[in-house]
Amino acid sequence: MSSSFGTVFKVTTFGESHGLGVGAVVDGCPPRLFLSEADIQLQLDRRRPGQSDLTTPRQEHDQVTILSGVENGRTLGTPISLIVANKDQRARDYKKMLSVPRPSHADYTYQMKYGIRATGGGGRASARETIGRVAAGAIAAKILNEIYNIEIVAWVSAVGLIEAAELYTDTINHKLVDRTAVRCPDMEAAEKMAEEIRRVKKERDSIGGIITCICRNVPPGFGEPVFDKMEAKLAQAMLSIPAAKGFEIGSGFSGASMRGSEHNDSFVLKKDHLGTRTNNSGGVQGGISNGEPVFFKVAFKPTSTIGKPQTTADFNGQEVVLKASGRHDPCVVPRAVPIVESMAALVIADMALRHNSRK
Amino acid sequence: MSSSFGTVFKVTTFGESHGLGVGAVVDGCPPRLFLSEADIQLQLDRRRPGQSDLTTPRQEHDQVTILSGVENGRTLGTPISLIVANKDQRARDYKKMLSVPRPSHADYTYQMKYGIRATGGGGRASARETIGRVAAGAIAAKILNEIYNIEIVAWVSAVGLIEAAELYTDTINHKLVDRTAVRCPDMEAAEKMAEEIRRVKKERDSIGGIITCICRNVPPGFGEPVFDKMEAKLAQAMLSIPAAKGFEIGSGFSGASMRGSEHNDSFVLKKDHLGTRTNNSGGVQGGISNGEPVFFKVAFKPTSTIGKPQTTADFNGQEVVLKASGRHDPCVVPRAVPIVESMAALVIADMALRHNSRK
Amino acid sequence: MSSSFGTVFKVTTFGESHGLGVGAVVDGCPPRLFLSEADIQLQLDRRRPGQSDLTTPRQEHDQVTILSGVENGRTLGTPISLIVANKDQRARDYKKMLSVPRPSHADYTYQMKYGIRATGGGGRASARETIGRVAAGAIAAKILNEIYNIEIVAWVSAVGLIEAAELYTDTINHKLVDRTAVRCPDMEAAEKMAEEIRRVKKERDSIGGIITCICRNVPPGFGEPVFDKMEAKLAQAMLSIPAAKGFEIGSGFSGASMRGSEHNDSFVLKKDHLGTRTNNSGGVQGGISNGEPVFFKVAFKPTSTIGKPQTTADFNGQEVVLKASGRHDPCVVPRAVPIVESMAALVIADMALRHNSRK
Amino acid sequence: MSSSFGTVFKVTTFGESHGLGVGAVVDGCPPRLFLSEADIQLQLDRRRPGQSDLTTPRQEHDQVTILSGVENGRTLGTPISLIVANKDQRARDYKKMLSVPRPSHADYTYQMKYGIRATGGGGRASARETIGRVAAGAIAAKILNEIYNIEIVAWVSAVGLIEAAELYTDTINHKLVDRTAVRCPDMEAAEKMAEEIRRVKKERDSIGGIITCICRNVPPGFGEPVFDKMEAKLAQAMLSIPAAKGFEIGSGFSGASMRGSEHNDSFVLKKDHLGTRTNNSGGVQGGISNGEPVFFKVAFKPTSTIGKPQTTADFNGQEVVLKASGRHDPCVVPRAVPIVESMAALVIADMALRHNSRK
Repeated sequence: MSSSFGTVFKVTTFGESHGLGVGAVVDGCPPRLFLSEADIQLQLDRRRPGQSDLTTPRQEHDQVTILSGVENGRTLGTPISLIVANKDQRARDYKKMLSVPRPSHADYTYQMKYGIRATGGGGRASARETIGRVAAGAIAAKILNEIYNIEIVAWVSAVGLIEAAELYTDTINHKLVDRTAVRCPDMEAAEKMAEEIRRVKKERDSIGGIITCICRNVPPGFGEPVFDKMEAKLAQAMLSIPAAKGFEIGSGFSGASMRGSEHNDSFVLKKDHLGTRTNNSGGVQGGISNGEPVFFKVAFKPTSTIGKPQTTADFNGQEVVLKASGRHDPCVVPRAVPIVESMAALVIADMALRHNSRK
Repeated sequence: MSSSFGTVFKVTTFGESHGLGVGAVVDGCPPRLFLSEADIQLQLDRRRPGQSDLTTPRQEHDQVTILSGVENGRTLGTPISLIVANKDQRARDYKKMLSVPRPSHADYTYQMKYGIRATGGGGRASARETIGRVAAGAIAAKILNEIYNIEIVAWVSAVGLIEAAELYTDTINHKLVDRTAVRCPDMEAAEKMAEEIRRVKKERDSIGGIITCICRNVPPGFGEPVFDKMEAKLAQAMLSIPAAKGFEIGSGFSGASMRGSEHNDSFVLKKDHLGTRTNNSGGVQGGISNGEPVFFKVAFKPTSTIGKPQTTADFNGQEVVLKASGRHDPCVVPRAVPIVESMAALVIADMALRHNSRK
Repeated sequence: MSSSFGTVFKVTTFGESHGLGVGAVVDGCPPRLFLSEADIQLQLDRRRPGQSDLTTPRQEHDQVTILSGVENGRTLGTPISLIVANKDQRARDYKKMLSVPRPSHADYTYQMKYGIRATGGGGRASARETIGRVAAGAIAAKILNEIYNIEIVAWVSAVGLIEAAELYTDTINHKLVDRTAVRCPDMEAAEKMAEEIRRVKKERDSIGGIITCICRNVPPGFGEPVFDKMEAKLAQAMLSIPAAKGFEIGSGFSGASMRGSEHNDSFVLKKDHLGTRTNNSGGVQGGISNGEPVFFKVAFKPTSTIGKPQTTADFNGQEVVLKASGRHDPCVVPRAVPIVESMAALVIADMALRHNSRK
Repeated sequence: MSSSFGTVFKVTTFGESHGLGVGAVVDGCPPRLFLSEADIQLQLDRRRPGQSDLTTPRQEHDQVTILSGVENGRTLGTPISLIVANKDQRARDYKKMLSVPRPSHADYTYQMKYGIRATGGGGRASARETIGRVAAGAIAAKILNEIYNIEIVAWVSAVGLIEAAELYTDTINHKLVDRTAVRCPDMEAAEKMAEEIRRVKKERDSIGGIITCICRNVPPGFGEPVFDKMEAKLAQAMLSIPAAKGFEIGSGFSGASMRGSEHNDSFVLKKDHLGTRTNNSGGVQGGISNGEPVFFKVAFKPTSTIGKPQTTADFNGQEVVLKASGRHDPCVVPRAVPIVESMAALVIADMALRHNSRK
């Protein structure tokens, strides 16, 4: 296990899906910042199950409590501990799966690594683990916004084969993203995505998707080459999210088929500073932010838990047919939007503090 | 700067392109392993410039010296320091660029971050920085091979729009990869790729590409959730390589458009252990290796240095036309193959040791 | 703030004296170990205030709850989170001190570092912070005992000028230590120490003391030179305890006046392995355990909070006379015994796992 | 092995006594600082053997080369690699000891930990390992001096039973310390110490000693509670030095016998800021510097290598008589003075940068 992330702004998360609770400790947060549970609850509510008919019907209210590190609404500079109690445990749904490792879940690998695993649901590999990240990320995002005016906005840019129009503009914000339950600001695409999700849900199947994220007003200079380049830590952060299978920054995989003369972002004077005409770099060069928006995409696989029968093997190698009866998201991306934003905030906050240390 | 990577098996690299030398310190290497400079030189030779007409004509012999940590051909358990002297410096090629930040290079961002930058070439952002990684990675690969029989093989799977056939088989090895200068084992594609590289070279342009990597015989259990999942650390490692823009494991971005019933890797008895029928997961589930081959792809942008004239701005915002006169690779992927392998080896070696600590 | 300790076996603590609670997250604990709240409560009870007339009359019951990482009485390999609610807050005792930094407390330095500080009591600098360490240390101690049969026993060896006889033997254990409230196994000295503590208490003053600790059955090979030598990490661990001012291992400061011929621990065959005739080294050589008992001493200053009037200055530099009215320990060492043991256990558990990783 | 120290200002050392060389990589050094090899050489020359008749007659010139991280005399912000070649190896002196672990050396523990050890001399446990620390520390000290005007001065305050007068004043500096070969600024005591060292040398024995260190002008606010308190990291740093057996800050062990009313450092207005009347705290409160001088002592045991015959056992447990024939220091403290200063500088530089990150 490695449940800590960050060098100076550091988060440690804990909790299984069916224990007493989940949460996080944020160490290294700057002092004297205004912070309340409401600041954190906002993002937790965007992450929680049961928000719409596109997500699992499980209702988890996920109320956060700040145990330490804040007094009279301001951070003390000391570790901020955040707790969310587990309520809707429904361990019974998972009982029958104990002898059968669910395909593309972590049952098999946890059992092989630890020689034991949580009996209820995904345990530590459950999506509930991300509550700690989202709570911590909300703090990071608030700091970045207050000190640097940095805005981090993610949205669903693809569900299955349905892609949103390239909406990479200055206008996207949380409000526009949250207009639809699917969290895609392209209203036309959003409708098709919702239909697709409903379709796979009815078929007791699931579907993957892509999230795009943009971070505006990141000042030049953030990122710590050579191993903690901005894009490298973003990649780690994103691939650590359950179900994430791919990451690309700027041109990404499409950059692989481009010519240098086409891909290079030439410089141009923008008001009082140098900017670039294009942003194939995705806001980073040599691992360091260049002042242009940092933007990247994250690919998510279809939810592993499906109601459709699957022919697989139990731990003894015996062939069995598995049919999940729990209530699960047919598509993870609508609820993964705040998770992607939170992980981005954690990366950039740590980069900001690390950069400041040597200024 | 953050020049260290790994928790237990830890590498620290150093060096600019035009200083006295580059290198690495490998700390935490298990003792009593056979190790010689020849073991390391092999991969350095695959990385060095001047190997063929597809790479830069610069000749850098990059001879490695082991300064410490090895005695009588065996590791002592103490830090292994590796040094490669810089020889062909040709600082003159870069002089004229001092006042003009090269588009999509790190000149601008290093200047903004540090308020100073190396006058010769890319400095720390130069591809020479990867020598330390390759040298350290060769040690990691040797350990993994000797202790676990792990084999790590990477190859060029795309140059521009030319893609290799899906060669994901047990037969690919270093020898097959190195049959062509472009390092693509699909001979037909390799020829087209070489032509494409020669074409862009003649046009004083550059082209991007994709590298695929497979790691065989990784035992189940490697990877440290939740933040140091196998795929998360691989993603960080790969995105820390100069010019990398994307990473995907298993199904990757294509997984985003798949159904769960299609994507799930169901279990099946393979000899004496559970395996999976398909490997859309890319050998990892929940961040932990599952015994299937770990495989992933890395996208590289076209080389930023091109001979073609580029309209850009100098540090003062004045428009200028820039024409690079140095000798550079028209396509980075053939030489990036051993870099990808080395970074994979560093990740997996650290995972192996971390897993052992708690067995 | 840096609230994490350890590389593989890693603890993160949190909590101020007057917030909702204090606690710890233990990450990297081996799986499948038996663990219950009772295992942890034992050491917390030895640490808690109100145990005898020698300690503060404040009653804090400090009941621990395990939130995660344990199921059906066994560790899962996932982070173990431990929470203790704050009950007896009595913030009123401290109110009047807000404008006056208490001499030799952390009021001034926290204010200077963070520009803010907890209004109630010592905040993060309070001795309540050590609850997280003791809870985590109890887990580490259990592991060390079960896997290696390692026993860690600390006791009070001096209070003021009263020293215990050199009791460095195989017979000291928790039971013998806990026979007296002062936690000194030399009954005669213990009585004098208790008298001394009662005397300074009556005088509204405080007194310092020394704790000795012995760790038996530490196998040879633990310790990670050169910076994480066993004695170096023990020294860090001990000096991180509130009120600690000194650390010595083996001969310690008395070794400075010895001759090499007298100080050297010569080898001798002990049963089936090499041991040493003397143990001036304190069980470590070159930073690595040698199989002999690891033993060390920690010096604690007198409690800073005293009832006696003190002439000092307020934050504006105005001279004031300060008289503490809270209820505090006249001597910290009796209650610091389990803290010293816990920190030693955290160090050795991390060393054990780190050593295993490369065996 | 753990050869890295520091979180933001980070040093990694490498090298055995009889390999090709020793050195260090300093990562995280602020950019644009003036730095030359001469800045570093000064402290290396104070550390090197053969300086006087009080140290070993071995002549090691220990010329440092900067391989990277500095251009045109200024730091680039990139890793600074420092190399010192090994010249006078004299491996023959040690050959006969191979089968016999030297008492109180690290031969036995390295062999037990790694199953192998360097055949020449102390290998990684040799005092030559400290060259990397001293070189890195010289950089840290320069930064601290230039940015904060911090001065770090250490001196020999005891050799055997001979103690220097308490010279804790503002006047001690490197020049006064270096007036005598023994590095004690109390001229009378220095003479007696030199006599004592010559005496034990003639008797082919060795003697321990104590070094005191003072760090002036450390601003309030440095130190990262709770585990990386200033005194905790200083303690780790000092106990990681070969032959160190004890550390105390401020009152240290003598504080254990003091009353609170006597020990408390009451505040008083000093010019424009709060200071303390006394400094029993040694410049730190709650793990954070308070603006008063940081001062501490380090106890060193007598050199383990002595010419006097010692009855001990070989690796097989056979009793043997060992007589060292190499040339060694009869007392380590004169040469350990720059090592103590260097380690203090590394600690404080890291604390300074970490503090800045969250200001």
